[in-house]
Amino acid sequence: MLLQSLREQVLEANLELVRRGLVLYTFGNASGVDREQGLIVIKPSGVEYDDLRPEHMVVTDLRGTIVEGALKPSSDLATHTLLYREFPAIGGVVHTHSEFATSFAQAGLSLPAFGTTHADTFHGAIPCTKPLHDDAIAGHYEHETGLAIVRCFRLSASGSIQTRPVPGDATHAADAGGAMSPDPSQTGGSAFALDPLAVPACLVAGHAPFVWGRSVHDAARTAVILETVARMAYRTLTLKSEADVVSQALLDRHYFRKHGETATYGQDPT
Amino acid sequence: MLLQSLREQVLEANLELVRRGLVLYTFGNASGVDREQGLIVIKPSGVEYDDLRPEHMVVTDLRGTIVEGALKPSSDLATHTLLYREFPAIGGVVHTHSEFATSFAQAGLSLPAFGTTHADTFHGAIPCTKPLHDDAIAGHYEHETGLAIVRCFRLSASGSIQTRPVPGDATHAADAGGAMSPDPSQTGGSAFALDPLAVPACLVAGHAPFVWGRSVHDAARTAVILETVARMAYRTLTLKSEADVVSQALLDRHYFRKHGETATYGQDPT
Amino acid sequence: MLLQSLREQVLEANLELVRRGLVLYTFGNASGVDREQGLIVIKPSGVEYDDLRPEHMVVTDLRGTIVEGALKPSSDLATHTLLYREFPAIGGVVHTHSEFATSFAQAGLSLPAFGTTHADTFHGAIPCTKPLHDDAIAGHYEHETGLAIVRCFRLSASGSIQTRPVPGDATHAADAGGAMSPDPSQTGGSAFALDPLAVPACLVAGHAPFVWGRSVHDAARTAVILETVARMAYRTLTLKSEADVVSQALLDRHYFRKHGETATYGQDPT
Amino acid sequence: MLLQSLREQVLEANLELVRRGLVLYTFGNASGVDREQGLIVIKPSGVEYDDLRPEHMVVTDLRGTIVEGALKPSSDLATHTLLYREFPAIGGVVHTHSEFATSFAQAGLSLPAFGTTHADTFHGAIPCTKPLHDDAIAGHYEHETGLAIVRCFRLSASGSIQTRPVPGDATHAADAGGAMSPDPSQTGGSAFALDPLAVPACLVAGHAPFVWGRSVHDAARTAVILETVARMAYRTLTLKSEADVVSQALLDRHYFRKHGETATYGQDPT
Repeated sequence: MLLQSLREQVLEANLELVRRGLVLYTFGNASGVDREQGLIVIKPSGVEYDDLRPEHMVVTDLRGTIVEGALKPSSDLATHTLLYREFPAIGGVVHTHSEFATSFAQAGLSLPAFGTTHADTFHGAIPCTKPLHDDAIAGHYEHETGLAIVRCFRLSASGSIQTRPVPGDATHAADAGGAMSPDPSQTGGSAFALDPLAVPACLVAGHAPFVWGRSVHDAARTAVILETVARMAYRTLTLKSEADVVSQALLDRHYFRKHGETATYGQDPT
Repeated sequence: MLLQSLREQVLEANLELVRRGLVLYTFGNASGVDREQGLIVIKPSGVEYDDLRPEHMVVTDLRGTIVEGALKPSSDLATHTLLYREFPAIGGVVHTHSEFATSFAQAGLSLPAFGTTHADTFHGAIPCTKPLHDDAIAGHYEHETGLAIVRCFRLSASGSIQTRPVPGDATHAADAGGAMSPDPSQTGGSAFALDPLAVPACLVAGHAPFVWGRSVHDAARTAVILETVARMAYRTLTLKSEADVVSQALLDRHYFRKHGETATYGQDPT
Repeated sequence: MLLQSLREQVLEANLELVRRGLVLYTFGNASGVDREQGLIVIKPSGVEYDDLRPEHMVVTDLRGTIVEGALKPSSDLATHTLLYREFPAIGGVVHTHSEFATSFAQAGLSLPAFGTTHADTFHGAIPCTKPLHDDAIAGHYEHETGLAIVRCFRLSASGSIQTRPVPGDATHAADAGGAMSPDPSQTGGSAFALDPLAVPACLVAGHAPFVWGRSVHDAARTAVILETVARMAYRTLTLKSEADVVSQALLDRHYFRKHGETATYGQDPT
Repeated sequence: MLLQSLREQVLEANLELVRRGLVLYTFGNASGVDREQGLIVIKPSGVEYDDLRPEHMVVTDLRGTIVEGALKPSSDLATHTLLYREFPAIGGVVHTHSEFATSFAQAGLSLPAFGTTHADTFHGAIPCTKPLHDDAIAGHYEHETGLAIVRCFRLSASGSIQTRPVPGDATHAADAGGAMSPDPSQTGGSAFALDPLAVPACLVAGHAPFVWGRSVHDAARTAVILETVARMAYRTLTLKSEADVVSQALLDRHYFRKHGETATYGQDPT
C-alpha cells in the first residue's frame, strides 16, 4: 500500500476536524501531498468517520487520477489538486463547513484581522472569493472553485488570473492560459500578490472555507484556529460594526513572533 | 409485536435527536411509516428518553387510531398522520424545538438558501407557515398544524389548499375539499408546487420545525442538518442583513451532487 | 437528621443545574419546603458542588432561622423564604445566573412568549422587576429582592404591594402592611394578578432569574427550560426586533395541553 | 527543584483554563509568584497541555531572568513580570484569548458592570487599554503591553504613567520615570486610581484579557468568570445597546457580600 504514513496523517487530520466540532456527519475533507512522488492522499467521499481507516484513503496524482484505492475520493478533489498545483509550497489542504467561517463566506465577507489571535496565524485578512459565474458552476465546478481561490492570491498586472498548465491535463488547459510564475518550485511566496503560506486560508463565497499548510496536520490545526478567529470576528462586528483592524505593526509583531527566522514562540527544535 | 424493525428505527432516530442536542427533556418526537401495512410507529408522549425501549413505541393507522401500544402516543400525532397522508413519498417525520430553527419559526421567517451547506440537503428556501387562525387552534390543532405545512407545498391554481380525503376519516373530511392530486401514490413530487422531498422541512410559525424524509433515519439526520443550516443563516443575517441567497446554478449544482440520478457524492451502493 | 428525603431532592436539584450548565462554580442555589412542618431545606453558601452531600443542606424555618445544619445557608436565603411565605402553592425555589436569562435581566427586559416552547411551560411573558432603590439595596437586600419579585405578581387595586405578615417576623413586618390575600392557603392562583404557578419565574433587573414550582425538582427543570426559552427569545429578537408574540389562543392551547384538568400531554399517572 | 508547590499550582491553573474552554491548543498562560523569594513560576512556551508536568514550569526572577528550567518561558513573560512589579498585592497572573472577552478587546470596548454576576467579582467596569503606538510594538512589546495595563489603574495627577523602577532593571528603567507609589509593599489598593485587586482584569485593545489575583488559583478562576461575564455583557448589549449599568449601591452590595471584612458569602474559614 502506497504512502502508509501520509495516509495516517490524512486520517488523523480528518479526525481532528471531527473532535473540534468543525464537521457534521461526513461534511469536510482533508488531504496531503507527497511532493517527491507527486501523489495526493485524500479522504473518500461520504464515508462515516467512525469507519475510516488508513486503507480507505484514496491516492491520486496531481491531476486527480486515482492511483490506488477502491473508494471514490472526496467530491472536492479537483479543488484540492488545483491548490496543490498552484501553491507549490503547501503540503496539506482541508475543507470544512465550520459554522462561523462559513457564515462569513455566506455573507460574502472577508475576515479582517481584528486582533492578535488572528495575527498569530494569519498575516492579514482572510480573503473571500467572488461568486462563481453560472457557466463556471455548470462546468468543472470544483476546479473553478480552486481557481476562484487562487485568484485571491495571484493577480497578474492586468488582473487576469495566472495559473500554471499541468502537462497532459487537457481538461483544465483552457483555464491555464496565463504566464508561468517565475520559479514556482520555490517557497511559493515570491510569485503571489498574497503569500498563500502567510494567509493559509480562503473563504469561498456562498460556500465555506478552504485551508492549507505545510502539512495536512498544519492545515487541520489552522482550520480550527480559523473557526475560532471567525467566532471572535463575528462577536467583534456585532458589538461594533466599525471595529478597527489591528495596526500593521501589531500584525507583524504577532505573526513574526510565531513565523519565520525571527520567531521566538515555542521551544527550539531538538 | 408489530413492526419490530421500524420500532427500533424510530427509537434510534429519537435518540439521535438527543445525542445531537436537538431536544431538551421529552420535547420532540419522531415517527416512521410502513406503507404496505398502512401503519405508523411513533414515540409515546412525555416519556424520558433514558427509559425508552422499542416496545414503548405506539403503533397507529394513518388516521391515528392506536393499533398496538399501552402508552399514549406523542401529542403531535395528528400532524404526523396528516403529513403521511399528504406526502405519499415520505417514510419518516421528525419534530423538534431545536434552538435556531425554532428561532426562525418564532420570527415568522423562512430559512433562505445562503450557502452550499443548505443546498446540499434542501433544494431551496425552507418555508415558514402563516400563523394559524384562532378557530384552527381551538379546533383540531395538531391536524391544522399539518394543514398549514402542506399549504406551503401544495397550492391549487386558485390558491386554496388541496388535501386528499382519507376514506372513513370523518373528522378531517371537511378540510379535504380540494381536488385529488393526480396519481398521489407516485413519487410525491409531481403534485406539489414545492416537492416535499426536495425541501424536506417546514417551519411552523410561532412553533418549531417539522422535518421528514424517505425514512425516519433520513428525517432525523435532516433535522440535525436543518439546525446547523439555521445556525449559519442566523450568523449570516446578523452579519449582513441583506445577504444574498445562492444562485439557482449553485443551488442546483450542490443539490444534484447529492440527490437524484446525477448524484456523484458518496460511494456507489453495493 | 430532619427531612432526609427533601435534603436529597434539594441536592439533586442543585446538581441538575450543574449538569445542564446553568451554574458556574458555586453560583446558584435551590431549596425546597416542607409545608406541614414549616421547614425549608437550602444549599449551603459557597460550597463546591462536588463536595455537596445531603447532610450539608441547611434546614431553616420560614423566617430563615436555622433549625439544623452546621454550615451557613445560601446568601439568598431571605429571597427564598419570602417567596415561600408569599406564594403558598410553591414547594421549591431555584436561583441561577444562567447566561441568557441573566442577559435579559441585565437589559431590564421581560421575556415575551414568542413561541410554543415558552407556552408549554409559561402561561405568558416572564416579568422583569423594576430596579431596587438604593435604600432597599442597603437594607434587607435579599428580602427586598423577594419583594420586587412578588410585586410583579401581586398588585393591589391601588398598586401598592400586598405581602402577608408572618407571625413573629418583626424584621420584615414593616414591609408587610398590605391586606391579607383572601384564603392564602389555597392554590395560590386566586390572590394574584399573575398566578405564580402559571408563570413560575421572574427576572430580577440587573441580577438574574428566580424560578419556582410545586417541588424543587419542578423548579430546577423549569430553570433549565427558562434558559432554553431565553436563548430562543434572544435569537428571535436579534433576527427580528419587532417579532410578534404568540396569540392568546396559541398560548392557551399549548399551556393547557400540559397543565390543568384538560392536559393531554404525557402518560396518565398510575 | 525550586518551588514544587507553586509549580503544581501554576500547572493546575493552566489546566483549569483548558477544562473551562478558555484556551485553544497552546494559547494562554498562567504564572504565580513567591514574594518572599522574589521568584516567578510560569508555563513554558508552546508546549501541548497534555504533556505539561510541574518540572516543565520555568522559574524566573521578577525581571524575567531564568533561574531554573530547561524550557523557554511563555512569550508573554515580560507582561507577567511587569504586573508583579507594579501590582505588589497580586500572587498570580493569567492570560487567555477567551472568545468573548477577546471580542470586547478587539472592539476596543471596556466591559461595563451590567449585573450582579459582574459585581460579585469585579468592583466596576473592566477597562480596555488604548492601542499601543507602533514604536511600543516594535520595542519591548510584551513589557509595553504590561505598561498599557498599568496605565488603566495607576494615573498620576498629570496623567502620565507612574511605574516603579526595579533595581538593576536597566532595560525598563526608561519607562519607570514616574514617582514611586507611597508604600508599594502594602495592599496595592492605596496607590492606584483603580485598585487592581478590586478589578482584577484588563482587556488589552486588539489583543485579549490579562487577569490576576491573590494567587494563581484565584487568577484562573477569575479568568473563567470574566469570560462568563463577557458572554452576558455581549448578549445584553446586542439585546439593548443602551443598557444601563448597575447602580453603585448594587455594585457595592454584591461586591462586598463576597469581599473584604464585611463579606458574608461562603463558609467561615476553619
